[in-house]
Amino acid sequence: MNPDIIKERQNATFDVEKLTYILDGGLEKTKRRREIESMVFSDPDFKEEDPNFLSRSERYDQAVRKSAQMILKLREYGIADPEEIYCYKTCVNPDRPGPLDLHLAMFMPTLLNQATQEQMDRFFMPTWNLEIIGTYAQTEMGHGTHLRGLETTATYDPATQEFVLNSPTISSIKWWPGGLGKTSNHAIVLAQLYTQGNCHGLHAFIVPIRDMNTHVPLPGIVVGDIGPKFGFNEVDNGFLKLENVRIPRENMLMKYAKVEPDGTYVKPPSAKLTYGTMVFIRSLIVGESARALSKSCTIAIRYSSVRHQSEIRPGEPEPQILDYQTQQYKLFPLLATAYAFSFVGQYMKETYHRISGDINDGDFSELPELHALSAGLKAFTTWTTNSGIEVCRMSCGGHGYSRSSALPDIYVEFTPTCTYEGENTVMMLQTARYLVKSYRQAKAGQQLSGIVSYLNEAKQHRVQPQPVAARPTVVDINDLASLVEVYKQRAAILVELAAKSIQQEMQNRKSQEDAWNNSAIDLVRASDAHCHYVVVKLFTDKLGEIGDIAIHSVLSTLALLYALHGITTNSGDFLQAGLLNVPQVHQVSARIKELLSQLRPNAVALVDAFDHHDKKLNSVLGRYDGNVYEHMFEWARRSPLNATEVHESFHKYLKPLRSKL
Amino acid sequence: MNPDIIKERQNATFDVEKLTYILDGGLEKTKRRREIESMVFSDPDFKEEDPNFLSRSERYDQAVRKSAQMILKLREYGIADPEEIYCYKTCVNPDRPGPLDLHLAMFMPTLLNQATQEQMDRFFMPTWNLEIIGTYAQTEMGHGTHLRGLETTATYDPATQEFVLNSPTISSIKWWPGGLGKTSNHAIVLAQLYTQGNCHGLHAFIVPIRDMNTHVPLPGIVVGDIGPKFGFNEVDNGFLKLENVRIPRENMLMKYAKVEPDGTYVKPPSAKLTYGTMVFIRSLIVGESARALSKSCTIAIRYSSVRHQSEIRPGEPEPQILDYQTQQYKLFPLLATAYAFSFVGQYMKETYHRISGDINDGDFSELPELHALSAGLKAFTTWTTNSGIEVCRMSCGGHGYSRSSALPDIYVEFTPTCTYEGENTVMMLQTARYLVKSYRQAKAGQQLSGIVSYLNEAKQHRVQPQPVAARPTVVDINDLASLVEVYKQRAAILVELAAKSIQQEMQNRKSQEDAWNNSAIDLVRASDAHCHYVVVKLFTDKLGEIGDIAIHSVLSTLALLYALHGITTNSGDFLQAGLLNVPQVHQVSARIKELLSQLRPNAVALVDAFDHHDKKLNSVLGRYDGNVYEHMFEWARRSPLNATEVHESFHKYLKPLRSKL
Repeated sequence: MNPDIIKERQNATFDVEKLTYILDGGLEKTKRRREIESMVFSDPDFKEEDPNFLSRSERYDQAVRKSAQMILKLREYGIADPEEIYCYKTCVNPDRPGPLDLHLAMFMPTLLNQATQEQMDRFFMPTWNLEIIGTYAQTEMGHGTHLRGLETTATYDPATQEFVLNSPTISSIKWWPGGLGKTSNHAIVLAQLYTQGNCHGLHAFIVPIRDMNTHVPLPGIVVGDIGPKFGFNEVDNGFLKLENVRIPRENMLMKYAKVEPDGTYVKPPSAKLTYGTMVFIRSLIVGESARALSKSCTIAIRYSSVRHQSEIRPGEPEPQILDYQTQQYKLFPLLATAYAFSFVGQYMKETYHRISGDINDGDFSELPELHALSAGLKAFTTWTTNSGIEVCRMSCGGHGYSRSSALPDIYVEFTPTCTYEGENTVMMLQTARYLVKSYRQAKAGQQLSGIVSYLNEAKQHRVQPQPVAARPTVVDINDLASLVEVYKQRAAILVELAAKSIQQEMQNRKSQEDAWNNSAIDLVRASDAHCHYVVVKLFTDKLGEIGDIAIHSVLSTLALLYALHGITTNSGDFLQAGLLNVPQVHQVSARIKELLSQLRPNAVALVDAFDHHDKKLNSVLGRYDGNVYEHMFEWARRSPLNATEVHESFHKYLKPLRSKL
Repeated sequence: MNPDIIKERQNATFDVEKLTYILDGGLEKTKRRREIESMVFSDPDFKEEDPNFLSRSERYDQAVRKSAQMILKLREYGIADPEEIYCYKTCVNPDRPGPLDLHLAMFMPTLLNQATQEQMDRFFMPTWNLEIIGTYAQTEMGHGTHLRGLETTATYDPATQEFVLNSPTISSIKWWPGGLGKTSNHAIVLAQLYTQGNCHGLHAFIVPIRDMNTHVPLPGIVVGDIGPKFGFNEVDNGFLKLENVRIPRENMLMKYAKVEPDGTYVKPPSAKLTYGTMVFIRSLIVGESARALSKSCTIAIRYSSVRHQSEIRPGEPEPQILDYQTQQYKLFPLLATAYAFSFVGQYMKETYHRISGDINDGDFSELPELHALSAGLKAFTTWTTNSGIEVCRMSCGGHGYSRSSALPDIYVEFTPTCTYEGENTVMMLQTARYLVKSYRQAKAGQQLSGIVSYLNEAKQHRVQPQPVAARPTVVDINDLASLVEVYKQRAAILVELAAKSIQQEMQNRKSQEDAWNNSAIDLVRASDAHCHYVVVKLFTDKLGEIGDIAIHSVLSTLALLYALHGITTNSGDFLQAGLLNVPQVHQVSARIKELLSQLRPNAVALVDAFDHHDKKLNSVLGRYDGNVYEHMFEWARRSPLNATEVHESFHKYLKPLRSKL
């Protein structure tokens, strides 16, 4: 164990283990998580070569092997709880997506939700036994977030009682689905349904794409891998071009909408039924943000505690780089953010489960709010985390750039969350739509409830440009409740500003749609402020649940840092709105410096509490024992370029060059 | 040619070709650049497989082949001007560093600058002929920016008249030098010189590391590749562990410092001599920022003009995504930034050459200012570009994540500039040191000249927290000269704030060093504001040189957008200082929206003017002809995973799984 890191741990003012329980949601959960981790990490069947040393094809191969093993073992051990499966899976391919993910997380659930009993009888067992390996093919080369734009067609032919599927254009080729390229033999294909000369919009069809025995693509199917990406090297994201592919009528998923044998179309009873899954996945992504950011902070903070560099006082030994104020200013606000997002992730999960219960009872009343919140928070947390990972990486100096640090991997595996499951800007605008609608309801005298109820208080005068000094400011920058209040007011003011921008554009004889587009910058800004308020509020609320005094104290410091740091980086908003005055903004800067010093002794303990197993971090810089350099050297020696002393290119190109010069 | 992109070009209000000349520095330069490009791109010897389809070893192999070819051809064609060599090189390995880069750009120049005549006689011709292939080994595993911390030792042994080189610890192993792992047979090693029992600090030694004939590592040399990185896959960044390696006394580079045969150390005449190269490279990086950002903008803006998605008005066809205000708000400020950095890059190059002349005449007077400026601007431009590339990538939706977009490559090849040649935070603090020193001189009544002369005007009252409304504001937000003035004042105020923070810390009985560290956040902020001012100023100055009215007009719009966007993103600073009032900040936001609309018709033409050849961009999304989807499909089909219809993993793992479930 590195002596610096031992000392860091001795300096902690709180019980790390207890904080881990809080993050996991209780002692029992921590115990079970560790059990599962040790099951996987001690299992020789899951031993792997570092994927960074492998070619793309070898990476894919290794991932297929491990995913197949995983399915066997999950059944062998009887692990069936979705959260436990998830936990197991993230140990098998440490936080890397795998080739069977869509089979398990999309193909099978879609079958369960949308197949008729007859279809279940035909498809479920083969799917369960992996005779059918499926994926979910929605996105097309030219069409993503805007589903109505999808071009793939499924035209019903009553003569043969078949659907004929086609990719009518290049841009309609299915593109991106995971596991589509090489792994799957079936796909649930989303296509525009045509019957009796009419288009009835998107519906889902089960399409066999490869021979179940030979795995060779079927006639009319052009399928393959879409090529290398930034990350996701284990996944065969694929393309699928359909050329007059015929499937029986019974392969349309018909639990809700139907096509009768004669071609008559029967509408589904409700459109809200698929809404829930989307909300669920976006809520989960909030937790993913917390995980990615907490891993990055763990690596950067542990390394910063053992890394000595430069000098503060001449002649003295090189200090730990964690002693530099600039390093603290990079990392501690991110550490606070990782905690904030962890608690927001917990809240989203709980809320989803609560509201799911209501939905099952037919009560959809809270769904719109959850939908708006999950969209905005998905964007807010992923954007913050995305840039935060890179700050952590660069705070490790050159070594952050090495794959041995794991930070490049964390980044490339995380960054797609900003785009998938709803592109972030679109998500922010969806939340804004809800906020503006709520604002208008409040203005019309309606009493709002839930998290937007603050819009009831919106007052006309707020956005009038007034001299800042004329406003009363009663903010106590050391009081979290008071800070929650200013974040709330900032959000209210920015929602109002956006709503007024739309109104003004419409007064300038713009259509409602153009007015919306011409106010989009303000709308995104309003959503962002709303989400920021929610995060500060939920972090503060969480403190109320913490009984342990030492932990309460350190988390309060983190929460305060989170809130005050958000104020400095957005000080213009707070000043513009007259919520803070200039001396207060200066006080905030000064207070942040104090908080950095205050957190310094607990920094390593705070990342330890996330309890990321060394095998999950897979980072030479982030090791629990702090023995960084020995392991970096050892790792480097295993680099494939070191397989031979002399690379063949010397004999092929460099030596022959001499005689020509 | 895609019809959308044709229309875009028809809408342009200025002559693209003429703007290209301005960016290149004149018609002749553009012509010559294009000549060199066509030389390389039409040369079959430089044909290559897309590196994204190759393994690490294949990538390295291909790069060695092409680099060797390049050296042959440069000599064959007699290309000797450094700028032309650079241009040729960036076409051979399109903006990827190569394995021979350090031989050409560090080993050979160091020899030229620091070798004695006798050493030149021994080493130069073999180096020129690539019998000696060299690298420059400075950075160690545990030591980077802070050079005094380097641990490698070179101890003189007068008995044999040799130096004995050692890596005394793990952290002293040389780490990162390009070309060290597999390519080089010599290294210039920076080591602490010990002779007659005293340490004389860092000196440079020529150390043979591999047998010149067999290329096998020599005794006492442990050398290899440091393993995969985020990018730089063509380069064998290496490690070097020295175990009692003996080299003759004459292998110390002795043009300046010397060790006599008896071990007597002779000091160099001046310490400033190596200073210049560092400044030069940092100045060049400013230009690299411009290049990386302009490439990213080219890809994102061209793609956004052919990409249709979603809807603004219901029922109408999907609009070009460049019509969304949010998309414009992401991309146009970056486009403006790319122009700003291009002109700053030109300025830095010119200034360097001017001052170099002075230095050769023994006049070092302007060097400190250039040093401070190049450090800060290196950090300022690379940080901005680094995040800007990712904004461009994510603005392309999912496809930005594909390697076919080239954006992941641009990012991973560019991002090390934030760390190498001086870590950015350290760079910002170096600039701050100069600013604080200048500020103190000004306060002491000294008249400053050059770019910091504004500190003469620093007035005591500025940082007094005053009600914002009480300040007179005379800023015209449509007048660039007026905006340069507010940026200047902001910088002056933040420099003063930082200086006062140090003073206050010292009054609290902190040592000068601790006071500095406790003010580091303010110091970085001051440097940032200073650099921002310089960029706005240089962009504005450049407009004065533009004769063409149409180009002047569009560049003025860009400059205004650059300046106003910087104000919104830092509005807190301007409000806090009372440089702008609240209504003005609102006006700035409104004005930015107008500028976005105003730039919209010229957006594609403005990226065309950068004149990045399709073969240099290497991006299916950024193609000049806009035919994105056909080429994406074609590219994907070449993916290595598509080499076989059925991947072997199906037979190895998936099919056998069925019988077990």
